[in-house]
Amino acid sequence: MRRIKLSEGGGGEETWSLIKELFLKHFNNPVLASLEDSALLPAPSRIAFTTDAFTVKPIFFKGGDIGKLAVAGTVNDLAVMGAKPLYMSLSFIVEEGFPYQSLERIVESIAKTAEEVGVMVVAGDTKVVQAGHADGLFIVASGIGEVVYPGLSCRRIEEGDAVIVSGPVGDHGACVLAQREGFEFEGDFGSDCQPLWDLVDTLLRSGVEVHAIRDPTRGGLSAVLYEWAYASGVSFLVEEERVPVRDEVLGVCEFLGLEPYHLACEGRVLISVRAEDAERALEVLKSHPNGREAGIIAYAVRADRKPTVVLRTLYHVERLLEPPAGELLPRIC
Amino acid sequence: MRRIKLSEGGGGEETWSLIKELFLKHFNNPVLASLEDSALLPAPSRIAFTTDAFTVKPIFFKGGDIGKLAVAGTVNDLAVMGAKPLYMSLSFIVEEGFPYQSLERIVESIAKTAEEVGVMVVAGDTKVVQAGHADGLFIVASGIGEVVYPGLSCRRIEEGDAVIVSGPVGDHGACVLAQREGFEFEGDFGSDCQPLWDLVDTLLRSGVEVHAIRDPTRGGLSAVLYEWAYASGVSFLVEEERVPVRDEVLGVCEFLGLEPYHLACEGRVLISVRAEDAERALEVLKSHPNGREAGIIAYAVRADRKPTVVLRTLYHVERLLEPPAGELLPRIC
Repeated sequence: MRRIKLSEGGGGEETWSLIKELFLKHFNNPVLASLEDSALLPAPSRIAFTTDAFTVKPIFFKGGDIGKLAVAGTVNDLAVMGAKPLYMSLSFIVEEGFPYQSLERIVESIAKTAEEVGVMVVAGDTKVVQAGHADGLFIVASGIGEVVYPGLSCRRIEEGDAVIVSGPVGDHGACVLAQREGFEFEGDFGSDCQPLWDLVDTLLRSGVEVHAIRDPTRGGLSAVLYEWAYASGVSFLVEEERVPVRDEVLGVCEFLGLEPYHLACEGRVLISVRAEDAERALEVLKSHPNGREAGIIAYAVRADRKPTVVLRTLYHVERLLEPPAGELLPRIC
Repeated sequence: MRRIKLSEGGGGEETWSLIKELFLKHFNNPVLASLEDSALLPAPSRIAFTTDAFTVKPIFFKGGDIGKLAVAGTVNDLAVMGAKPLYMSLSFIVEEGFPYQSLERIVESIAKTAEEVGVMVVAGDTKVVQAGHADGLFIVASGIGEVVYPGLSCRRIEEGDAVIVSGPVGDHGACVLAQREGFEFEGDFGSDCQPLWDLVDTLLRSGVEVHAIRDPTRGGLSAVLYEWAYASGVSFLVEEERVPVRDEVLGVCEFLGLEPYHLACEGRVLISVRAEDAERALEVLKSHPNGREAGIIAYAVRADRKPTVVLRTLYHVERLLEPPAGELLPRIC
């Protein structure tokens, strides 16, 4: 088996071979192929810029891998700001001895996902650290997008807004955790990891009044609602019976003592819309393949004293939704 | 001693505290402080985009640290493409148990260097991995710049071009290696790590005809000249007696059996200029604090069969300059 060697990160001949044989082979565009120190790009008038480190373990999981995750994560961070994803950079930190074949599988997965969503990988870097000084592979992706729909912001959320989720929550977190713990699942339950620009674009193009969008990754649904509450000064009332959660996810949560509302999604968005536009927004989302299971799950309400997030449970009891805290789920994304 | 906890990378309350107490404290600008998923930025008409992972060991070294290095490396990758550095993103991959104080020292160092060079940190991410799954701290920086001087490219290098280096070579590599091996130095020898946009800007503004600029990081002088030779189809003749190398660097090289031409610089640029403009370029460089020790070290000559790099040694013997290869220097940047 070919394994990654320290010399392949040294900046010498072996590094150049790796760049040509692996990266240029799969990310085939003239900007990257110019191999200059920066990618030169025509710029739109207003850009969005984001970065994320991906340290997920295991790196291959049902429904995706660290590479697909890196593209989806970057695309979604741009999409939720109303920005069409244009360019990506990728930095690989590889542990010496990492299987070349696995790296190639991941690069292929990135190339495929990037092509599907129309984003171009235009810059990159590779470092190899000694065996034992990293854990397989870390990827850091940065993205540049063109702001097509300006004005989305958590500060625009108002009392009365409806909060829509684009699909079941917690799939990614539960799937990765379950795989790490050695659980077996039947059927096609896997990570929801997917890029959502097309879904967001479809929604925003429809003209409904959207105030804010966010993808509930680390810290899950709960983290986003608390961020939104603090930023906008409103509270949220979440209807538990309306929050879509798969049975498999509930099973993992029960077993590990977790809240599904804290589990990371990697292919869902939360959308805060003007109350009057909620049904129309839902209709648009449901007509899109990535939004078929969308539902209204919460409403923005006047904050009593300080903004908070309340869950009305299946038994119609109201309790605080726990904010995410502690060693939730390291290496989930 | 406060140490970084897994929970500080979990995306919950502890992560938010870290962001506010550490990152927003030091990178204080409204774009970052909006804490949205992407930074929204006004864009120049033509942008340069670059990324680099920094895995240097040790993370504090004489003349700098991994943070200053991340800014210098990013700024210099933009500068050599004629781009004024505008925005940076930073991803931190931190090993659980890493001293908080060290992280703060590094963040301060980044903030100081970024401010000096006028680049704004507008996006970031932090992941914490379990103890033993990384080595202290890795930083990945991406940068966006405005292309002020278009047209620089290694493909423009021509026969007759003079190659100028802006200062002594190998300081960074020798300094980091020496520290890793436990050597002691007297005096003020340290890494050359520094951002060079101002130097490059001064040179390009002067109107001399510059064809290409590159910073000799991993693989050093040799790597850049070989890349240039392959890209432009010319060979290079390097005059060994003209290449500035400090005695301390020669000492480290002798002891460890290395070529100074393979050692990384982090605050030098190589510049290929039209022969007639070489003296004028040198004058401009020498008038700038970061270019005082600049010198002409090589010429582009017609390639015999395939482009290569020849060194005319101190004894006037001509031999091939070894291209960088093998496990040169892992974790040097």
